[in-house]
Amino acid sequence: MKIIQDEFSVRTTSRNQMIDINSQVEAFVSESGISDGEVTVYCPHTTAAITINENADPSVQHDMLMTLEELLPQDRPGYRHYEGNSDSHCKSTLVGCSERVLVKNGKLQLGTWQSVFFCEFDGPRNRKYIVQVRGQ
Amino acid sequence: MKIIQDEFSVRTTSRNQMIDINSQVEAFVSESGISDGEVTVYCPHTTAAITINENADPSVQHDMLMTLEELLPQDRPGYRHYEGNSDSHCKSTLVGCSERVLVKNGKLQLGTWQSVFFCEFDGPRNRKYIVQVRGQ
Amino acid sequence: MKIIQDEFSVRTTSRNQMIDINSQVEAFVSESGISDGEVTVYCPHTTAAITINENADPSVQHDMLMTLEELLPQDRPGYRHYEGNSDSHCKSTLVGCSERVLVKNGKLQLGTWQSVFFCEFDGPRNRKYIVQVRGQ
Repeated sequence: MKIIQDEFSVRTTSRNQMIDINSQVEAFVSESGISDGEVTVYCPHTTAAITINENADPSVQHDMLMTLEELLPQDRPGYRHYEGNSDSHCKSTLVGCSERVLVKNGKLQLGTWQSVFFCEFDGPRNRKYIVQVRGQ
Repeated sequence: MKIIQDEFSVRTTSRNQMIDINSQVEAFVSESGISDGEVTVYCPHTTAAITINENADPSVQHDMLMTLEELLPQDRPGYRHYEGNSDSHCKSTLVGCSERVLVKNGKLQLGTWQSVFFCEFDGPRNRKYIVQVRGQ
Repeated sequence: MKIIQDEFSVRTTSRNQMIDINSQVEAFVSESGISDGEVTVYCPHTTAAITINENADPSVQHDMLMTLEELLPQDRPGYRHYEGNSDSHCKSTLVGCSERVLVKNGKLQLGTWQSVFFCEFDGPRNRKYIVQVRGQ
């Protein structure tokens, strides 16, 4: 088994934002030389997340971020955390800080409309994510 | 390490539905000959998901789908996506498009009441999911 | 590839609670002798979950649990499940029953503020979680 890992930077520009990082993940898997296995995309931040969703119509990203804003507004009576970003921590846990995609013949086994997204919930910030491919 | 993968079909019959696919996953792991490792169940669709939850009382599935419907109704003022299924994309990201179960002695290491479910959020449709076992 | 697994017990003391289990996971990975790979933390219960979030200010845990309570109250008109814990099953599926962390040089690749938490949503109870390290 081979394990190949690297870290990538991303600059976000809004408080809530989805950034398609699929081409970076695909290129890294391709260059790893690993043909079959799994790739993990991991977000080391507690107010951001990784998800897989539609890459075709950008309205989907707008609608998803709007929905999360309405369910999880920044100001909720009773919040104690002094940084004012408890909503961002909630979004991070509900969306999840990592995703995994299967790899076959050196390609990500994504569905037709799927891309991997970095989700910012407390931007704008300089962020990073880690990609690890495991397989043979 | 061995990596064994296959694709399965599932026909859903409602807009929102949970289908227990545990016996298919268990049989595939058993036939793989892999004794110890991990199995990934992956949904390549952006309006469906995979989850692990209770398999005993079907009321749990009813109550979970009802809750998701109430939190994420199909019509929300401000939605822009022309297909009218932005709620389905949100459910997919919040539930998540894959699950992983540990494998020991050729068996899924699920808890007593746990099964793996395919979650439809924009049916009825013909869907598929991918199962990959990795281990030795 | 090496695969090393063990089961851990945890006693919860409230209906909703987040318990930092990071030191147990870190010690297990360190003792496994595995230098590079991935660790899975898996919850075999259908009314509990595993998440990764902030370990510094305990107000974050308070605010996250309060938000989940408000979005998913125990009593929702229409619930059919006789045990009165349908909200707990929903929280389990939305937070997710497992997390994975990358391992490099024998260390968890967590961000500065990240810890792994066991999330109780139907306590107090005696619970368990499984930790599996895979790598070389």
